[in-house]
Amino acid sequence: MAGERESEVKLIGAWPSPFVLRARVALNLKHIQYEFLEETIGTKSELLLKSNPVHKKIPVLIHAGKPICESLIIVQYIDEVWDSSWPSILPSDPYDRAIHRFWAAYVDDKWFPAMKGIATAPTEEGKKAAVEETLSAAVLLEEAFVALSKGKPFFGGDHIGFLDIAFGSQLGWIKVTELTSGLKLIDPEKTPNLAHWADRFRQDPAVSGVIPDTQMLAEYARSLFAKLKGAQPQN
Amino acid sequence: MAGERESEVKLIGAWPSPFVLRARVALNLKHIQYEFLEETIGTKSELLLKSNPVHKKIPVLIHAGKPICESLIIVQYIDEVWDSSWPSILPSDPYDRAIHRFWAAYVDDKWFPAMKGIATAPTEEGKKAAVEETLSAAVLLEEAFVALSKGKPFFGGDHIGFLDIAFGSQLGWIKVTELTSGLKLIDPEKTPNLAHWADRFRQDPAVSGVIPDTQMLAEYARSLFAKLKGAQPQN
Repeated sequence: MAGERESEVKLIGAWPSPFVLRARVALNLKHIQYEFLEETIGTKSELLLKSNPVHKKIPVLIHAGKPICESLIIVQYIDEVWDSSWPSILPSDPYDRAIHRFWAAYVDDKWFPAMKGIATAPTEEGKKAAVEETLSAAVLLEEAFVALSKGKPFFGGDHIGFLDIAFGSQLGWIKVTELTSGLKLIDPEKTPNLAHWADRFRQDPAVSGVIPDTQMLAEYARSLFAKLKGAQPQN
Repeated sequence: MAGERESEVKLIGAWPSPFVLRARVALNLKHIQYEFLEETIGTKSELLLKSNPVHKKIPVLIHAGKPICESLIIVQYIDEVWDSSWPSILPSDPYDRAIHRFWAAYVDDKWFPAMKGIATAPTEEGKKAAVEETLSAAVLLEEAFVALSKGKPFFGGDHIGFLDIAFGSQLGWIKVTELTSGLKLIDPEKTPNLAHWADRFRQDPAVSGVIPDTQMLAEYARSLFAKLKGAQPQN
């Protein structure tokens, strides 16, 4: 039996971070009580520097005093440690697991940089390319949804799974990017399955209490995008 | 019982790729027979384009007719499908698994781009920065080795594990970069544990037959680096 100290779960994070949101949704899905340690934006706490000395980045999960870093690694860790708590986050079949991991990596390596480029690319050309990349990525993710969900509500089937968490955590920033750019990134006409999935994901009890409010996020984003633009060389 | 067709394993790859090497070492560790489908360098076969339409990249593992992409995802897939075949590639403890995954991601996200920059950075400044980053990364990986191996021969303990495969697959290109730059990236004096580990990894029966010959790789690298340099804007 684990003692109080050994079962202690803490999460170092910040409310606007889509990567921190992944850990929160996974913890909520498994009904794990945890203490949320909010970092002050723009600074790094001593605990963060000590817990993630390599990347110095949130999120960091601290379980029984030991730090685990990188959002998708944290989600897998949560799934493996609380493996008897329903639901399972990764699919049980190895092939399905590989496909979920593939698309989760796609979200991080392709979708996220492309979408970020819409707001932060220093040139009009760069911005245009970012829009095209993001819209193509949305079509690929729509196709992946149809293939993986097999008519069920989530990428993971009947409940939120690994890829739902990986992509769903971006929905707040997708909305903000839509608001500021006037674009429809998840378009009810072009990607209808993703659009319905996004509504379901936001309303899920594991998500609704932790996904940031769009207006608050939009305000935060305005100052962040201005800073990012200012930091890049102008062409 | 799986039929002949269902148990069929193929790997689309190319001999100089460190990422393809990961899949080969994992298959060898588990004693899986497979057909190696060598891509002609500079072209992409129809099978590759069909099997990995998103990234169009090697390696692709084809198991029972179904493609699995991305080297670290392939290694995990192999470990999960042939889970009763000794040895287990990922550690059994969830925390240890998270740590192996963390450092494997570090190899891909930090080590590899830094080392590549030594040969391909377009400016002397860029090259110098790449050398510093690579040497710092080697020190971190030396520390990780000491912490994870606990006096045993590999990151994975008594046998080659996930992080051994992730980092060990780079050893051919590390040697080539050392040859062409005159640097010691894995230095027997500064990173003695890594240096001994590297020798053990290369000599392991799962590795020795598939790790590329250094001279052949160096010749291949000369033409590749020249091409990469030519393709980048000169400052």
